[in-house]
Amino acid sequence: MHHLDPKTRTAADLALDCYKHCHGMATTHCLAVGGAHAERGHLTLMLACAEICRTTAHLLLMDSIHGRHMARECVEVCKACAADCERLDGMEPCVAACRACAKACAALV
Amino acid sequence: MHHLDPKTRTAADLALDCYKHCHGMATTHCLAVGGAHAERGHLTLMLACAEICRTTAHLLLMDSIHGRHMARECVEVCKACAADCERLDGMEPCVAACRACAKACAALV
Amino acid sequence: MHHLDPKTRTAADLALDCYKHCHGMATTHCLAVGGAHAERGHLTLMLACAEICRTTAHLLLMDSIHGRHMARECVEVCKACAADCERLDGMEPCVAACRACAKACAALV
Amino acid sequence: MHHLDPKTRTAADLALDCYKHCHGMATTHCLAVGGAHAERGHLTLMLACAEICRTTAHLLLMDSIHGRHMARECVEVCKACAADCERLDGMEPCVAACRACAKACAALV
Repeated sequence: MHHLDPKTRTAADLALDCYKHCHGMATTHCLAVGGAHAERGHLTLMLACAEICRTTAHLLLMDSIHGRHMARECVEVCKACAADCERLDGMEPCVAACRACAKACAALV
Repeated sequence: MHHLDPKTRTAADLALDCYKHCHGMATTHCLAVGGAHAERGHLTLMLACAEICRTTAHLLLMDSIHGRHMARECVEVCKACAADCERLDGMEPCVAACRACAKACAALV
Repeated sequence: MHHLDPKTRTAADLALDCYKHCHGMATTHCLAVGGAHAERGHLTLMLACAEICRTTAHLLLMDSIHGRHMARECVEVCKACAADCERLDGMEPCVAACRACAKACAALV
Repeated sequence: MHHLDPKTRTAADLALDCYKHCHGMATTHCLAVGGAHAERGHLTLMLACAEICRTTAHLLLMDSIHGRHMARECVEVCKACAADCERLDGMEPCVAACRACAKACAALV
């Protein structure tokens, strides 16, 4: 979005990208594979990460001061989600998206 | 909300109530119980129902004409979710919330 | 929701109630009245508060540990929104909903 | 997302792009410019379009059958929003995003 400074725009884009990976993989790959991928702790962490990323992007796109507060939570949940996904097969795209989002959000805090 | 006509207000309230039941039970009860409760088809239907209910309420609360269009989709997904939940143990609160929401949304279409 | 401890359930209910007031009043009352009610700073604060409340409830309903992190942001934005609404006519229901939500979320942090 | 067929993936991507434009421009450009840009009918249409696009993407990313039902509503609100934005200055990026999303969603219905 042209109206935002470059760091905020990048963080909003990467937060939406992370939302797409976490939400998409949780509800397709993880539930289809089952076992450890569909265990409650893992799945709720992925869905929590997806929701926090989506809302962080929403606040950043509004150019709201509260976007920076959300960015702080976003860094935390993305790091936790990346670590949890790393234990499991086929989650590399999710790990990469979480790490990229955490880095861009950390630059705003 | 005082600014809405009674039928719209009721539909918004019941859509949020249905969202709470579907989203809450999917991510706690269903994932904890496992088996048929955590099967991909069931879980994604519950999450789809939760999301459509939440968005229907969002549009109705804005008093947007598009709230009535969303209400049409809400009726459909709530009926499908109620039928799917009825097959499984312990889902009675979810079935009741879906039916109540479908009825209130149908009154707007 | 029966699966949550009472403090978490109360916070989720009051966060959704605050979402309903902030989102509903911003998009009907405030935009209809215009003037200071529709000024960018006020309106984006109300929409930011609505979104953060909605997401806090979403995380709390999942019984996610990240719900408590969101509750911390929720307290902050609800206090800011209550103070800003207090300056303007006819916003009493919004002020009350923000204060009740802030109190319930503060009890979780 | 690698797990979706190309038409669904394109529609999800363009729905999120349209959400970014409508939500971002409504809460920054339109509220800052004021006048006809901040008039209640225009602003609520942009916010309704943003929300429906965001939810359509959410359902499509889950590979849910209800994504196609949402796509039908998405086409309708995107066309209405494009037409309304065309009347106003500086809304070209929003018009283009709405048209592209409507086209991609229409291909799914």
